[in-house]
Amino acid sequence: MSSSQASALPIGVFDSGVGGLTVLNAIREHLPSENLIYLGDTARVPYGTKSAVSVTRYAEQAAKALIERKIKLLVIACNTASAVAVEPLQKLYPQLKVMGVVGPGADASCEATRNNKIGVIATEGTVSNEAYQNAILQRLPDASVVAQPCSLFVALAEEGWHEGDLVKQIVAKCLSPLLSDSQANIDTLVLGCTHFPALKNVIAEVVGPDVALVDSAETTAMAVKRSLAEAELLNDVSQQSGVVEFLVTDSPSRFARVAVNFFNEPIVPAEIQQIDIQHFRVPT
Amino acid sequence: MSSSQASALPIGVFDSGVGGLTVLNAIREHLPSENLIYLGDTARVPYGTKSAVSVTRYAEQAAKALIERKIKLLVIACNTASAVAVEPLQKLYPQLKVMGVVGPGADASCEATRNNKIGVIATEGTVSNEAYQNAILQRLPDASVVAQPCSLFVALAEEGWHEGDLVKQIVAKCLSPLLSDSQANIDTLVLGCTHFPALKNVIAEVVGPDVALVDSAETTAMAVKRSLAEAELLNDVSQQSGVVEFLVTDSPSRFARVAVNFFNEPIVPAEIQQIDIQHFRVPT
Repeated sequence: MSSSQASALPIGVFDSGVGGLTVLNAIREHLPSENLIYLGDTARVPYGTKSAVSVTRYAEQAAKALIERKIKLLVIACNTASAVAVEPLQKLYPQLKVMGVVGPGADASCEATRNNKIGVIATEGTVSNEAYQNAILQRLPDASVVAQPCSLFVALAEEGWHEGDLVKQIVAKCLSPLLSDSQANIDTLVLGCTHFPALKNVIAEVVGPDVALVDSAETTAMAVKRSLAEAELLNDVSQQSGVVEFLVTDSPSRFARVAVNFFNEPIVPAEIQQIDIQHFRVPT
Repeated sequence: MSSSQASALPIGVFDSGVGGLTVLNAIREHLPSENLIYLGDTARVPYGTKSAVSVTRYAEQAAKALIERKIKLLVIACNTASAVAVEPLQKLYPQLKVMGVVGPGADASCEATRNNKIGVIATEGTVSNEAYQNAILQRLPDASVVAQPCSLFVALAEEGWHEGDLVKQIVAKCLSPLLSDSQANIDTLVLGCTHFPALKNVIAEVVGPDVALVDSAETTAMAVKRSLAEAELLNDVSQQSGVVEFLVTDSPSRFARVAVNFFNEPIVPAEIQQIDIQHFRVPT
C-alpha cells in the first residue's frame, strides 16, 4: 500500500454505545479531512457496570470488526474499555497504533492541576479498576487522586437531562462525597466517562470556578492528531471533509435517536449498518 | 420421571439482571417450598433499551441455559423480554409452560381499574412494542391505555435511590406527561418493569391515593402458583424451604452487591455461578 493510500484509510473509533460520539466530535473538529468508522456496541451497552473480563472480550470483538474493515489507527472512545483493553489490544495488533481516552485524560489533568489534588468521576468499572488513579500517579507521583463512581450520569445524559435545577441537584448529590471531602480538596476534575461532557455545564456550576474540568474527548482528539502526524499518516492532502461511517450491534433506530444528545451532525438511521460481533472468537 | 421427581424440579426464572429478583421474592413468599434457579444476563443488561430482535435472541439463549439444567416451569421475570419472547419460547419448547410478567400484570390492572383508564410505566422497549397496551385491550376492549417510558427509574433503583425529596422530584418529572394528560385520567398504574417496585413508595406518593398501583411481580407469583397447581406440579410434599440457585453471565460480585436493593435474602457471591450463553446458537 502506498503512503497516500494508507493515509486515506479511516480511523476506527469504538465505544459501548453513543458516549464515544463526544470523542468523534472532537476528532471531526481537529481533523476534519479524516475518514472515520465508528462502532457502537449497542447490543451490550453499557460497559461501565460490567466486569473487566467481559469488557476486554467485548473490546477485542469490536477491534476485530474494525480491523477487518482496514483502519490506520484504533481509538477506544470509552473510558471503561480504555481502562482495561488498550494493552491487550496493542499486544494483539502490534502493527496498529491503539489509543485510549484514559492516557490523554491523565496527561491533561496533570497539566491542569496546581495543588496536585485531582478528582475523577467515572463509571463503576473505571473507578474500581483504578485506571485513572494509576495513570495519573505514573505521571505525577506526588498527586493525590480521589475517584467517585457516578453511574447515574450516564442515564441522565442519554435521557437528554442536561440542564436545569433538578439536574443540578442530582449532580450535586452524586458529587457531594467528593466535594465535601476536605482532605481531597481537588482543583481538577476529570470527566472520566465519554457521556459526561453532555453534563459539563451543570458539573461546572456544581464544582465552581476553582476546579478545572478535564474533558478527555478533547485531549484524545489532540493525541490522535499528534500520533498520526508522527507516523506521517495524516489525511491532509485534500480540503474535503472526511467520510464518517457508523456501525452498531443492535437496531440503528435508538442509536440515531439518542445520538443527537452527543453528536453535532445529524445521523440518518438508514446510513447506519448493523453487524453481529458476539460470535467472534477472540483473541484471534 | 415420577410425578414427585417432576415436582421437585426447580422453577427457572430469568431476567436481564437484578430486577427479576423482585419476582423471585414474590415467588419465594407464595411458594416457599419450591426449588428455584435464577439466571441474570448481567453481561448484556439492560434489555430495556435494546431492540426486540436482540432481546428475543438473548431470551432464547437464557432459556436454553435453564432448560439444560432441567426445570418444570420457565418464568421470564423481565417485562421487556416477556413482551417479545413468551410466544417464541413457548413455540420452541411446547412441553414446558413458559410464563411472562406482562400477562399477569395486564390481568391485575383490568381487575383494579374502575374507569377503564390505565397507565403503564416501563422501559423504552416495553413501551414501544406495545405489549401491555395490547394485552390490556385484549382483556378489556373498552380500556384506554397510556404508556410512558421511564428508563431513568432503572438507574435510580440500582443506585439505591429509593426515597427522599430529590427522588420524589425526579419521579414526578418523569411521570408528569402521564399525570398532566387530562384525557388519560388514569385510576390504575402498572409498574411495567421489574425494577420499579423498588421505587413503589415514592411512585405511590407522586400519583396519590386515587391511583391503584399494579406490581406485576406479585401477580406473576400468584399465576405461577395457579399454573403449578393445575399441572399438579407443586412441590408441597415437604415443609422445607426450597433451594435457590443463582447463575449470572458476568462477574458475580456486582450482582451480589446490587441484589440487596431487590432481594430480601442475602446472596453470597461465592454461591453464584458465572456461565457464558452468548455463543449459544438459537433457536435450537
